[in-house]
Amino acid sequence: MIDVPPADHDNELAFWSAASGQQLTQGDFHPEYHGAALHGQDFGLLIQRLGHGPGRIHIDIHTDDLDAEVARLEKLGAERVQQVDHWWVLRDPAGLLFCVVPEPAGSLDDGNAQRWD
Amino acid sequence: MIDVPPADHDNELAFWSAASGQQLTQGDFHPEYHGAALHGQDFGLLIQRLGHGPGRIHIDIHTDDLDAEVARLEKLGAERVQQVDHWWVLRDPAGLLFCVVPEPAGSLDDGNAQRWD
Repeated sequence: MIDVPPADHDNELAFWSAASGQQLTQGDFHPEYHGAALHGQDFGLLIQRLGHGPGRIHIDIHTDDLDAEVARLEKLGAERVQQVDHWWVLRDPAGLLFCVVPEPAGSLDDGNAQRWD
Repeated sequence: MIDVPPADHDNELAFWSAASGQQLTQGDFHPEYHGAALHGQDFGLLIQRLGHGPGRIHIDIHTDDLDAEVARLEKLGAERVQQVDHWWVLRDPAGLLFCVVPEPAGSLDDGNAQRWD
């Protein structure tokens, strides 16, 4: 996820759409996000329009068990920052923010995800 | 690529190894990097020990034609910053640094890469 301030947003979106060769489409429920899966990959590239603050990049971890994954990462040394809508924002040991995002049951399997239980 | 200052490096490496479930191994020729391919993915996660400066995350684009890819991205609005060893550092329209990294001929195909010609 590439997070950019408003003044840079449109140029950044155009650049990364062309750079990745993907049409990054706007979220229905969260219009501040544009994204797409990358060519032949389970990974997505997203651009977030920030309200303020400098541009940065953050990692999203996707999980089909949000509570268990946040607890696992907390035990490893991450700190909970806040829950936003249906995902959690955490801070890693170097102070970098990342998110843990829930996916529907059945969408993750041994082919595209790491099993923890 | 997660870039971290020396004081945070060891904690960050331990955290992201455990978080991703991958043993992030040290580079032979570039010991400041530790990395691994993510579970079932063509994507890798790397940790770079910075000499100085704040932690951040950057994107690496891999290509089997470095000169053509850097030229393509420059035309789209990126700026060349410097060549480091065998890769190029560029700056995107929002000022974020990213790298373009060469891969051997034959390592990329239509299944795992976007074709530009």
